[in-house]
Amino acid sequence: MTLPSFLSFKPRDFSLPNSSWGSEMMRMYDHYNSQCEVETEGGEKQEGKWRRLPSYNRLLKYATGGLYLSKMIQSNARLFTRHIRDPGAAFEYVLFVNSEEQKCVCIFQAGHLLEGPPGHVHGGAIATMIDTVTGTHATVLSGPVMTANLNINYRSPIPLGSTVLLESSLDKKEGRKTFIRCRVTSTDGSKLHSETSALFLSITVSHLLLGV
Amino acid sequence: MTLPSFLSFKPRDFSLPNSSWGSEMMRMYDHYNSQCEVETEGGEKQEGKWRRLPSYNRLLKYATGGLYLSKMIQSNARLFTRHIRDPGAAFEYVLFVNSEEQKCVCIFQAGHLLEGPPGHVHGGAIATMIDTVTGTHATVLSGPVMTANLNINYRSPIPLGSTVLLESSLDKKEGRKTFIRCRVTSTDGSKLHSETSALFLSITVSHLLLGV
Repeated sequence: MTLPSFLSFKPRDFSLPNSSWGSEMMRMYDHYNSQCEVETEGGEKQEGKWRRLPSYNRLLKYATGGLYLSKMIQSNARLFTRHIRDPGAAFEYVLFVNSEEQKCVCIFQAGHLLEGPPGHVHGGAIATMIDTVTGTHATVLSGPVMTANLNINYRSPIPLGSTVLLESSLDKKEGRKTFIRCRVTSTDGSKLHSETSALFLSITVSHLLLGV
Repeated sequence: MTLPSFLSFKPRDFSLPNSSWGSEMMRMYDHYNSQCEVETEGGEKQEGKWRRLPSYNRLLKYATGGLYLSKMIQSNARLFTRHIRDPGAAFEYVLFVNSEEQKCVCIFQAGHLLEGPPGHVHGGAIATMIDTVTGTHATVLSGPVMTANLNINYRSPIPLGSTVLLESSLDKKEGRKTFIRCRVTSTDGSKLHSETSALFLSITVSHLLLGV
């Protein structure tokens, strides 16, 4: 006898490796993942300096926000970066946080559905990953936030299909404001793709309910 | 007798109305579309001040860019904003340009797959539309360009499923640089969602081939 599917349902964690991940994506994943748990001299396991963040389709099953949100939209809504079911076609990424150094890294493999300029990743898809990484980082540091400003300097285009590294660091916190910086580079750090400064404002649920 | 399908193939123009377009999207579309062709007193038709821009999956069937682009990626690549086949699920939009006033408007209906904060559009999806509209506008004004900077101030969140207006205007041109401003508002203009300044650099094909 098996449980009814709604009882056994467990949301899929998209930040775990799948068959679409190329060798560079896997190499970088292993690099950070191996630092999430370390073995002491006595053979005991303890937390490492990095922590992998799981990733799901949505933050909430039913949205609290959007006063005029229709039932159809509520029930079908999916997180923008996880809306494609075909592995490898769009955003493949995993985030790791380092609380001690107040840093966050994201390994991002850009799929064939993210095209902007011929053969390269759309500037909006890059902005989407930057918003995701800096916004997640700001949330880890400051609790619920909304993006207030993204100032992105694009330095060199990213070929479709390639794997890049996003590194986010805390600039400063001032009251409700959290300032984050983010660099997108090749995985060996030799090529700079973009530099961003981002500002996030701490919010309460009422900000989303009232849309202000 | 019918032609073989590869001879009769005509790419789909995504900027034309489909069944997913809501009443607000249709009303705004009709407003600008009716100004694309005007009737003179003599009953003749002539070009109006606005022109609708068609929109396809890709700029080129086979990408020129990306030296290391695999054949699989080349053949499956799709434009990021047109990669979802289900009408209404993601980006529904149409652009109109007004060459005389050096303006561009975009009517954008945000589908349920674009969620960021619960019930609202992802900041990256908004950035994607801003990059698309300002980038298209810069291309109309200056020929081939790449995004060099996007500086986006997010003022208020956009509920999923709603229709908004993006208005892009030329700030200035200096050599290879084209500066564009863009506002995202409710369709009646009463609510400001975001304000952006964007910088584009004119490029040649070699910029994409060499990735510099």
